[in-house]
Amino acid sequence: MSPREDAVLSTMQDVPLLISRILTHGSAVHGTSQVITWTGEGEPQRRSFAGIGARAGRLAHALREELGVADGERVATLMWNNAEHVEAYFAIPSMGAVLHTLNLRLPAEQLVFIVRHAADRVIIANGSLLPLLAPLLAQLPTVEHVVVSGPGDRTLLAAAGVRVHEYEELLADRPSTYDWPELDERTAAAMCYTSGTTGDPKGVVYSHRSIYLHSMQVNMTQSMGLTDQDTSLVVVPQFHVNAWGLPHATFMTGVNLLMPDRFLQPAPLAEMIESQRPTHAAAVPTIWQGLLGELHARPRDVSSLTQVTIGGSACPPSLMEAFDRLGMRVCHAWGMTETSPLGTVARPPADAVGTGREFAYRLTQGRFPAGVEARLTGPGGERLPWDGESAGELEVRGPWIAGAYYGGQDGEHLRPADKFSPDGWLKTGDVGTISPDGYLTLTDRAKDVIKSGGEWISSVDLENALMSHPDVTEAAVVAVPDDKWGERPLATVVLKEGSTTDFAALRAFLATEARIARWQLPERWTIIGAVPKTSVGKFDKKVLRRQYAQGELDITRL
Amino acid sequence: MSPREDAVLSTMQDVPLLISRILTHGSAVHGTSQVITWTGEGEPQRRSFAGIGARAGRLAHALREELGVADGERVATLMWNNAEHVEAYFAIPSMGAVLHTLNLRLPAEQLVFIVRHAADRVIIANGSLLPLLAPLLAQLPTVEHVVVSGPGDRTLLAAAGVRVHEYEELLADRPSTYDWPELDERTAAAMCYTSGTTGDPKGVVYSHRSIYLHSMQVNMTQSMGLTDQDTSLVVVPQFHVNAWGLPHATFMTGVNLLMPDRFLQPAPLAEMIESQRPTHAAAVPTIWQGLLGELHARPRDVSSLTQVTIGGSACPPSLMEAFDRLGMRVCHAWGMTETSPLGTVARPPADAVGTGREFAYRLTQGRFPAGVEARLTGPGGERLPWDGESAGELEVRGPWIAGAYYGGQDGEHLRPADKFSPDGWLKTGDVGTISPDGYLTLTDRAKDVIKSGGEWISSVDLENALMSHPDVTEAAVVAVPDDKWGERPLATVVLKEGSTTDFAALRAFLATEARIARWQLPERWTIIGAVPKTSVGKFDKKVLRRQYAQGELDITRL
Repeated sequence: MSPREDAVLSTMQDVPLLISRILTHGSAVHGTSQVITWTGEGEPQRRSFAGIGARAGRLAHALREELGVADGERVATLMWNNAEHVEAYFAIPSMGAVLHTLNLRLPAEQLVFIVRHAADRVIIANGSLLPLLAPLLAQLPTVEHVVVSGPGDRTLLAAAGVRVHEYEELLADRPSTYDWPELDERTAAAMCYTSGTTGDPKGVVYSHRSIYLHSMQVNMTQSMGLTDQDTSLVVVPQFHVNAWGLPHATFMTGVNLLMPDRFLQPAPLAEMIESQRPTHAAAVPTIWQGLLGELHARPRDVSSLTQVTIGGSACPPSLMEAFDRLGMRVCHAWGMTETSPLGTVARPPADAVGTGREFAYRLTQGRFPAGVEARLTGPGGERLPWDGESAGELEVRGPWIAGAYYGGQDGEHLRPADKFSPDGWLKTGDVGTISPDGYLTLTDRAKDVIKSGGEWISSVDLENALMSHPDVTEAAVVAVPDDKWGERPLATVVLKEGSTTDFAALRAFLATEARIARWQLPERWTIIGAVPKTSVGKFDKKVLRRQYAQGELDITRL
Repeated sequence: MSPREDAVLSTMQDVPLLISRILTHGSAVHGTSQVITWTGEGEPQRRSFAGIGARAGRLAHALREELGVADGERVATLMWNNAEHVEAYFAIPSMGAVLHTLNLRLPAEQLVFIVRHAADRVIIANGSLLPLLAPLLAQLPTVEHVVVSGPGDRTLLAAAGVRVHEYEELLADRPSTYDWPELDERTAAAMCYTSGTTGDPKGVVYSHRSIYLHSMQVNMTQSMGLTDQDTSLVVVPQFHVNAWGLPHATFMTGVNLLMPDRFLQPAPLAEMIESQRPTHAAAVPTIWQGLLGELHARPRDVSSLTQVTIGGSACPPSLMEAFDRLGMRVCHAWGMTETSPLGTVARPPADAVGTGREFAYRLTQGRFPAGVEARLTGPGGERLPWDGESAGELEVRGPWIAGAYYGGQDGEHLRPADKFSPDGWLKTGDVGTISPDGYLTLTDRAKDVIKSGGEWISSVDLENALMSHPDVTEAAVVAVPDDKWGERPLATVVLKEGSTTDFAALRAFLATEARIARWQLPERWTIIGAVPKTSVGKFDKKVLRRQYAQGELDITRL
């Protein structure tokens, strides 16, 4: 039906959602809140939000007037979590340029690919990272300027053929206010490349609008739920999906930021928790596992830290229980580079709080917030119900979810069919279930799931079941081609030394003890010496699939 | 500077912020949360969010297919706070029409003006309000349909010349899902007329975008701060600025709604608090004053109710203290029809919590949240600092702030110069100060402030000072013309019976005891029998100014 001729029009102001507005709000209303940066020795550096606001203004003047940074141009950062990186987070998008955070943990060839793909002309780098950056510059023809902040040997850049600037000298004597432009809120604000295990990294470009809305969501009660009485220890790197939105979100509400800079080892983390008394922390599970070991070896007063957000990969139940015992309440969250990253947060529903069901809810990936729509797609492309049973590939839609990848300097945006559905939803590549009350449980990666006769078998479920057998050290399950079923699971098993068990016994164990359905039980079995691993320690199933295809594995059929 | 040719474009999905998305989220993820409506006898009516979602779908089908409601058309409601009104809140905007809430407390002639101005063709009314509506219909030529919900005498409409529908019959046998249209987020969603004391009521038209963003803000930690473990008693009427955003905000987070319908007297409110155990409530001060009296006369168990949001007018310190003693923590908020309404929320800053300064912060109107920009304009149009001292007219900007009034069926939007600045900010008509940390303290209405020699004198400050004198029952101070200063204050005083004080003594009291600056002390004084009042009990200063101008007051000059 078309609108009536007399359709009413809104009388609301048309005010764009801009990162500059988050900055000016935070530095005025929450001007005394602090960004505290660990320096490794003595007192940490303390800078007020008002101070950050003034320095962001100076940085923008310097980038524009000294380095000629234009609207829409990328400015890269190769930095740890610290106050200067926060300044770059605000100054670069607010002035109309695009913040491009470089992941310093990537292999050199990927870093080179990314800088060339984004055509970065300016890189702001921490001095401590020049040993990483300097050797790459010869392969980075677009880079003209390197701005260096913090301690480190500048002579490494002497022969690099770039103009080198001192961050503090660049800011000195410039105006502390900048007339932030009134941009369209859909203007690009920041970009971050996925470090996918297959193919080249893909660029996700966030807009002012997406970052503003994501920041509001982070500050909602059932999300991270922080106030200006909190101090958040941001272990998750600023080069890793906007540090989960914390630098932006905290400037909306005055939450203090505690930044570890390059001191990410368990001992200094324990020391900064004891001395700076953060109330909240955010990091991936491996960091917490290390911290837990440190605290057991050398107990500290970590009583201030009552809330811990864990994401990046699933938190093992044992780790969650261990943190609960220390008084640190773990809250699981799920997201990815393509989701800004907040996709779900595992706060239990009201009717489970204080009951025996609460822990199970906390182990899920979490509940979808308003703003993130979700659906599950089955093996045949059909929509699956939210019944907590039907497993399908998770697809999401929302104003802070990617709908494409950056196509590079001359290209259109990329919308590969395995990542974006024809109607624009993001295909996450994660397989799982959704409960009737909107909680996501991930069971597998889509590429690892076994598509057998129109049904899906979770490789992760089979692996966990196998590894719960007392004689099994490790187990990886991969899909292999099957004439009748399309795909069937291949079980590759690492046995404990001296074990006398056999495949038939393991198969029976899966069926009886682990209650795996008959039709899911593997027919193909092999013993291996160790499961091949990626550089970050994940099972590298590509290798196993290739070994199988090339006949390198000694297969037993049951 | 213009963008570089190679400016990066965002890769984010373009998903509009729509009220239908709040509804589908709430009725799926928070499907078991409840809208509880008081019925005056027996068990209250309970309806799940999932049920509300299904009934909103049915209502939209009925409005479109049976009543022919078109996109952009207004659909009016004349209803109390109840589940059916929540259904209308979601169905009407989600389908593309405009919810027009009618304030049932307005004088009949204003209601008639508003319905005619908006050209409402359909009114959904509670049966209990037909005695109010029926006599007006003869003056409402645009109204064709009245949909009646809940108990009440339908025969009142027999001769009104409109088609009468039963709400429940209209919904029966219709599909519970509706294919909500993918609207532009700036589409009009709801309208509400200000009940200004001067001139005709003015229409504010909210958009889907403004309501969505406002709802996110309401759910932020430092705003109302509710979760799905809360139940909110919404005393503030749904016809009063979107019930402060609660119906929308709660569907984002699963907060249960407790709706009092027409039972707004202290006794039933106390009863519903005791029996339904809400954790939060929202209302204007007069409601709380009445409830306090009721609780003193007949104590109830109100221990569940720990958070109370008070807005609409300033909360007296004595009332705040009385509620604190009952364990109900009062949180002040400020807003107006033009601000959706959330403008400020008085949560004390971290450095005042638990100190002697906390109560003073709670008595302010509150702190500006991200999304509401504020500035103060002085008597000469100059910008004033946020120093907690300089008083000026408050102007605000933001995505949920009005930038115009609705111009009626044939008109452009209206932007009167006394309400909107040339650069688009809303002039609130409120005079006050802003502290360096962003807390607003209102001291006067702009129309009541005395503009004396380029400085402003607060009439409210003088009145409060006078009323603190033991012999003064009431006092009103108004601006009167003055050849030398432009305006000067006239003090009109009601003395206690038998008082022997005189004006010189009162003036000396102001200077010494109340510490009013010399240049602010009134020269003109008069005794009156009572301060004239408006229909809602506010001082009616128009009457005093007119009496002075016509020489009806017996003035003494000091």
